[in-house]
Formats: sequence, C-alpha cells, structure tokens
Amino acid sequence: MAAPSAADYIQGVLAGDRNILARAITLIESQAPAHQAKASEVLQALLPQTGKALRIGVSGLPGAGKSSLIESLGSLLLDQGYRVAVLAVDPSSTRRGGSILGDKTRMPRLATDPQAFVRPSPNSGALGGVARKTRETLLLCEAAGFEIVIVETVGVGQSEIQIREMVDFYLLVMIAGAGDDLQGIKRGVMEMLDALVINKADGDNLKRAQAACRDFRGTLPFLEAYTPGWEVPALCVSALEKTGLDTLWQLILDFQDFMQQEQRLIHLRQQQQVYWFESLLKEALWNRFQAEAGTKYQDLRQAVHRAEIEPYLAVSDLLKHSS
Amino acid sequence: MAAPSAADYIQGVLAGDRNILARAITLIESQAPAHQAKASEVLQALLPQTGKALRIGVSGLPGAGKSSLIESLGSLLLDQGYRVAVLAVDPSSTRRGGSILGDKTRMPRLATDPQAFVRPSPNSGALGGVARKTRETLLLCEAAGFEIVIVETVGVGQSEIQIREMVDFYLLVMIAGAGDDLQGIKRGVMEMLDALVINKADGDNLKRAQAACRDFRGTLPFLEAYTPGWEVPALCVSALEKTGLDTLWQLILDFQDFMQQEQRLIHLRQQQQVYWFESLLKEALWNRFQAEAGTKYQDLRQAVHRAEIEPYLAVSDLLKHSS
Repeated sequence: MAAPSAADYIQGVLAGDRNILARAITLIESQAPAHQAKASEVLQALLPQTGKALRIGVSGLPGAGKSSLIESLGSLLLDQGYRVAVLAVDPSSTRRGGSILGDKTRMPRLATDPQAFVRPSPNSGALGGVARKTRETLLLCEAAGFEIVIVETVGVGQSEIQIREMVDFYLLVMIAGAGDDLQGIKRGVMEMLDALVINKADGDNLKRAQAACRDFRGTLPFLEAYTPGWEVPALCVSALEKTGLDTLWQLILDFQDFMQQEQRLIHLRQQQQVYWFESLLKEALWNRFQAEAGTKYQDLRQAVHRAEIEPYLAVSDLLKHSS
Repeated sequence: MAAPSAADYIQGVLAGDRNILARAITLIESQAPAHQAKASEVLQALLPQTGKALRIGVSGLPGAGKSSLIESLGSLLLDQGYRVAVLAVDPSSTRRGGSILGDKTRMPRLATDPQAFVRPSPNSGALGGVARKTRETLLLCEAAGFEIVIVETVGVGQSEIQIREMVDFYLLVMIAGAGDDLQGIKRGVMEMLDALVINKADGDNLKRAQAACRDFRGTLPFLEAYTPGWEVPALCVSALEKTGLDTLWQLILDFQDFMQQEQRLIHLRQQQQVYWFESLLKEALWNRFQAEAGTKYQDLRQAVHRAEIEPYLAVSDLLKHSS
C-alpha cells in the first residue's frame, strides 16, 4: 500500500477511520525528517478540529490495577454511547503488555470494540520525549471524533508532569498495602491530582482500603490543588467487582461542569499550551547549549560537584566564554 | 568606617566576628559590580572552610508558628552549647518582622544571644533570586563557625525547591485547622520533607493535632521521600508549651547519623551543588534567550496561547531564526 498523502491522512482522521488514525500516529512517531514534515502538516491542518474531548489522565504504580480500572470505566462509557480512546504511556523499554496483543489481554473490550481505540505510546528520544508524541496523538484522536481520551501512565516516571499538562482531569490510582510493600508515588504527583481512588477495595482488602481513603481525606485538604477551587476527593473503587465506578464517573462529570464555569477549561488549556511551548523551548535551548559548550561545561560541572567552585561563579565563567 | 578589604572580611568571618559576618552578608547581597567582585573573592576564599554545619530548613505557612518553634528549638540548642544561625527567607516585600527589631520580637533569645545570629534575607532581583543569596549567606555562617544553620521560609513561594536544595534536613511545620481555614501548602513541598510537625498541639487543639498526625502517618508512606531510604515521620509539638522539642531534636540527630552512613551526606551535597549550577545556568540562558528573541518570542507565545500553532512547531520556528 502506497503511503497516504497528507490530504489522505487529514480526510481519513476526520472521517474517524481507525486504520488511518493508527497510521497517522505512526507518522507522528517517526523520526525520519520527511515523515516529520508531513506529520507537522497533518497536525497543523487538524488543529481546528481538536479540543472537543474530555481528556483524562490515569496514573498509578504497576500493580495498582490501572488497566482493569480503565477497562471497567471505559466499558461503562461505551455502554453509554461514548467513543473512547486510550493512550498508554510507559517510559520503560521493557513494557509488559505494550503490544496490541498485550492490550487485548489488559483491556479486552476496549481493544476490540469498534467505538474504542487503544494505542501504546512508544519510547522517543526526540524533543519532549514520549509525552510530546502522546500529546500530539491525543490531538489526532480528538480530530477523529473520540469524545473521551484516557492517557494511562505508570506514575513513577519523569513524564508525569508532562502528562498532567495535557489532560483536563488527572486521577491517581493507588492500593492500600502494608507499608513495606509500597513504592512511593513520584514526587509532585500527589499535588497534581483532581481525584484519588483506592482500587481493589474488595474482599479482605476492603477495610484497609477504606482506612487509606479516610487518611487521604484528612491530608489532601492540606495540599494546594492543581485545579484552583476544586476539592480533591478520595474514594474507594473495585475494578474487579465494578463498585464505585458510577460514583467515579459522576465525579468526573461534576468536574467537567465545574470546568465549564467561568471559562476554567479554556484558561486551563491555554496555560497548558504555553507550558508545552516553554518547556519544549527550554529543553531545546539546553540541548543546544550543552552541545556548544562541550567539555568546558563538563569540566565546570565536575568542579562544582567537588565543591571547588561556587555554582554562581562557575555559571558566570561559563557564560563569559559562550555567545 | 572604611570598607573592609577582602582580606579583612575573610579573617573576620573565620574569627567568628558577628559584625564582620553581618557586613560580609551585606556585601554578598549588594548589586553593585564592585561589591559583587569582592563578594566572589571572599566567598571563594572561604569555600574550603564551609560545609561543617548541620543545615536545617524549616518551612510552613504564615501562622503555623515557625518562628516560635525555631526560637524554642534554637534555645534548646544554645543550652546544649551549639552556635546557631537563623536565616529568614521571605519573598514577599511586605514582610512583617523582617527588621532586626522584628526578629527581636519573633525570636527574642536567638536575636540577642552572643552564640546566635539571626538574619532576614532581602528580596533580590538577581540571578537565582533570594535563594541564591541565602545559600551564599549560609556558607558564610558556616565559615564563621556556626554549627547549626536554620533557614526559615514561608512555604508558599516559588523558592521552596531552592531552599530544599541547600539544606540537609527539611522540616515542614503545619497546624491542624478546620478545612476552610487551611491554605494549601505549595505544590511539591509535601514530597521534599524529611519530617513533618503539627505545631500548636496544646490545649483545646491537642486532639485535632493528634488526629492530623495520624492521618499524615497513614499517607506519608505513599509518597516518594526526598532522602532515599529515610522514612518521613509526623509528630506533634507545641512551641508554646515546649513539648515534643526533645523528640524533634533527637529525630534530627538520628537523621544526621543516617546521613553519615554510606557517604549519604557527601552525595547529597554534591547533588545539591550540581543542582545549583544547572538551575542558575538554565535561568541565565533563558534570560539571555528572551532578551535576544524579543517580540518574536512573545508573538509565538501568544499564537500558542490562542491554539493557532502547535507548541512544537512554534519552537522549531523560533529556533530557526535564532543563533
């Protein structure tokens, strides 16, 4: 099959064709310059057709049951007539279940239902890393008419802030475990939330989950919310027994209502766009500086590391010798 | 009085002369180029004599009782024979109690005891802001022989991360209040802690403080600690009734022991030095870029804000036209 033209991609995506959408995402992910030019053209043309989906981020450590929760919640949404896309981000290269076959196992209904679309995000060494490609993929899914886009992440990587900066509603999935079993959630994540769920609140685990929920309800009000004016709730769910999912969905709808007021959603997305612009720009400037400064930078960094020179003096020294 | 020479400053600080120390700090804070050159010379000469103090950061919202706690803890340390310096950072320009008179009211013993030294940090528009000057002041205090340096901050500003990156032990002071009264602690701070204290655990407030402590003990283990391997404790204190202070100090000593093992303290400080080098460098590069890019940067930023262009494309466009 010949490679589609930019116009083919644009028309296919706008028509909601999942095969063309999948190929457009592959184009966006490509590192080849010719592909990147075409991808930019496609993305720029589709931009006016983006922004209509409810964007949901779901983070949580491995084992928290994110996939089961997304499958259960997504099924509920498909039953209500929504078209649902799921983008799975995992910065580790040894991702278990990162293949399409894996997604069929992790999320059997979402991976096969014609009204759903599941896509793992690959690693990317490009500017902005995997998160930038995920954001562009999210925009393509919106242009293809998906009304709900869920971005799934493992909650331990450096990309969490970037994921937060591309979604409207950010959910952290945790489980109540014995202290020793716990792996701490990545620094900063706790203060980026719009809601926290304790999953696997079922069977023998129910009481422990409820206790954890109570503790979080006590401490969350001490934290500054990412979304000003929104009180971050903590609730128990069981993806297995499908309990708490209606409550969770109602909560997300309440959040959506809240964001429609006083142009909050518009302002949020404007801020997020500027965040992406500035963080990509800073990353690019930093990469360029490091390449230009070369060993001088490395030498001074080492001297600072050994406490032989004060950081400020090292910076002055370094900048004196660069344009 | 003629201005001291660099050698005068160096000798005076090393002799532990508090008057010369105070003047050396004023020199460091000065924006005048001649002062800055002399300050650099003094700082670089003193660098080998720094690093010996226990560096403690104390953050908390206005009203949490930080000053009372520092006064009480500091008095306990003075009684044990330690020399104690307190650097008070407040990025707001309308700081209440920022004057020496204010410090005498806030911390009567620390502000007058010959073995103590209290210094408010001024605002600074220079590279790195107030935090960089505070860090350099901390180094001067170490060279002057202070064994414990406490850096006090209000816990709501952008400078919290920078404060964290200059201390060994970082303490958050909170109070248990009704939900509505609470002002959220700055995003990210909760995950930078080495300990959390609930202050004003006295009188009618005791039960509420104990309940808040319990909640935090339940939730803190879910967070990634700043200091790997260290479990962040939550404890109740009363600066007023001087309860819990011995426990707090023992905790800090335990932390110090922990950091002495496996070269943890050495590694922490090396990391912190590199953090300062890179963050000052990035800030300087960013300032320079903005000055050079001028309206082109502002125009593209506006277009991104209005969602007329994808952030990545705007960055590519901007960098094409800059050296």
